[in-house]
Amino acid sequence: MRSAKLIELWRGGQRESLHRGHAVVCDRRGVVEAWGEPSRIIFPRSSCKMIQALPLVESGAADAAGLTERHLALACASHSGARMHVSAVGDWLNTVGLSEADLRCGSHMPRDRDENRRLTCSDESPCQLHNNCSGKHAGFLTLNQHLRGGPDYVDADHPIQQAVKTAFEEVTDEISPGYGIDGCSAPNWSCSLEGLGRAMAAFANPGSDRRGRAMKRLVDAMRAHPELVAGEGRACTLLMRAMGGHVAAKTGAEAVFVAILPEQGLGVALKIADGGTRAAEAAITAILVHLGVLDRAQPAVQTFLTGPIRNWRGIVTGEMRTAPGFPA
Amino acid sequence: MRSAKLIELWRGGQRESLHRGHAVVCDRRGVVEAWGEPSRIIFPRSSCKMIQALPLVESGAADAAGLTERHLALACASHSGARMHVSAVGDWLNTVGLSEADLRCGSHMPRDRDENRRLTCSDESPCQLHNNCSGKHAGFLTLNQHLRGGPDYVDADHPIQQAVKTAFEEVTDEISPGYGIDGCSAPNWSCSLEGLGRAMAAFANPGSDRRGRAMKRLVDAMRAHPELVAGEGRACTLLMRAMGGHVAAKTGAEAVFVAILPEQGLGVALKIADGGTRAAEAAITAILVHLGVLDRAQPAVQTFLTGPIRNWRGIVTGEMRTAPGFPA
Repeated sequence: MRSAKLIELWRGGQRESLHRGHAVVCDRRGVVEAWGEPSRIIFPRSSCKMIQALPLVESGAADAAGLTERHLALACASHSGARMHVSAVGDWLNTVGLSEADLRCGSHMPRDRDENRRLTCSDESPCQLHNNCSGKHAGFLTLNQHLRGGPDYVDADHPIQQAVKTAFEEVTDEISPGYGIDGCSAPNWSCSLEGLGRAMAAFANPGSDRRGRAMKRLVDAMRAHPELVAGEGRACTLLMRAMGGHVAAKTGAEAVFVAILPEQGLGVALKIADGGTRAAEAAITAILVHLGVLDRAQPAVQTFLTGPIRNWRGIVTGEMRTAPGFPA
Repeated sequence: MRSAKLIELWRGGQRESLHRGHAVVCDRRGVVEAWGEPSRIIFPRSSCKMIQALPLVESGAADAAGLTERHLALACASHSGARMHVSAVGDWLNTVGLSEADLRCGSHMPRDRDENRRLTCSDESPCQLHNNCSGKHAGFLTLNQHLRGGPDYVDADHPIQQAVKTAFEEVTDEISPGYGIDGCSAPNWSCSLEGLGRAMAAFANPGSDRRGRAMKRLVDAMRAHPELVAGEGRACTLLMRAMGGHVAAKTGAEAVFVAILPEQGLGVALKIADGGTRAAEAAITAILVHLGVLDRAQPAVQTFLTGPIRNWRGIVTGEMRTAPGFPA
């Protein structure tokens, strides 16, 4: 089994580039549709933030700290570092008696255009609140206070990351082959693509037990606050808005994308083999249209899939296409 | 025949992403070493700017306009839009009695950090001189004045583009299957990867005829002015500097890269199937080391190939590797 052809770029009537990858649609019993190799081991990267947030909710730490739906959306976010995101995470840390200095995610310039410009033109450095993962880390810190753990909460053997690992292995229903260090310094546990799809299907079919209630709260938070999960112009935000809040969608670095469809009881997971984000965004768009939850007439479908591609003078130079056999 | 595995990204002891592609090394007789499929049809994009500049030199237009080696380097460039590039192209157009308004390349924000910041913070829009292809277009316009052609010099049937097509088919030794419109609105003729490699080998083995003299002038201009061909921090510039001006190297959009090795009489051409620039830069670095013209100890080799990859806190998170069998 090998990767499948998923997304093509065409120019002048010729195929110029091709993205291969793997994708699965799962229900509560397992894979119902697949392209490429479902057993391929991947790093979910930020696509599994809703899994990484499970211990925060299940432990009672979120309720003890008075976290709202907005906080839970930020815990699952790869946000753009807009003022809205930065101030929300800063306020969250203050509320629980912590500060930016307690974070271990590092700093990077924000993707948000206005905030990026503000920092650039004032010669101000970004802080750790600007890190796209700062909400996830605020969640780690909130759980850490609850558990009275040590300050180095991103160490793989720290109780926080061990709690994440346990939840991850339970919802993927696999023993993880190991972990890598993510861009934000937290461990990222690997799994099969099928395992990630199974986990997303579990989120789409939450039970009434503690885990099921935590899953439902996190998915509801993502669906209710698409602007917190990513930001203006971003794929997660635009796709969730285009689906009217019925579906949760989340990207991960190196071209992972997942979706949770509660009304259909389905989970989706995909990985573009080469790590090309443009193809992950196009492929999840194609699958969501294929599954009938995203209207082909939505502008987001044009933005991320059907184009056309224009150059600096607005001239159409090419188009993106789904490869033959994908998604149907 | 299909694409070959060329560049891998590893994290936590596991392969996370993989770039497939095609690469050839050619001498004056043809392919001497290949990975993937040499007959694959590609768009060379900006990697063929030295071919697109041949009619400018061969026609006598460059000499008639008093163009220097710096102008010829800019004609072959995908520059960063630094002040240096913008003012040089602006001066060039003034010298031949033309202006920015005569360009047909469109405008985009420059990659150069200082100039990008200056425009961003002064709320100034970029002009067409900032377009990374403005030097190529200044070359087209200079030839067009010489030929007394009409103003729409990017039309595929305009004498300028027909002259480019003729030169392109002659040096690739192929009939082009067709063209696509490039980001800068000029036609970009397609060819086989092998044809592009053959053309680069022709530039590496220039004869003493008019064409050979033009080829030698263009390659010498690129090698003498690596900062004009791209810009600070860019792969073409850093790789050419690291090879002490002995080799010309040029990137193209959608992950094409070529190199011209006059002392070895070799030409190199490669295309990453998925269009991922990071892999094109890594693969050309690997081939240049493999061919003995780039010292593995050069910082550019670390920058573009051997890493390691660090995150926002400076922690090593992974590494890039050449796939087994590539390049040796």
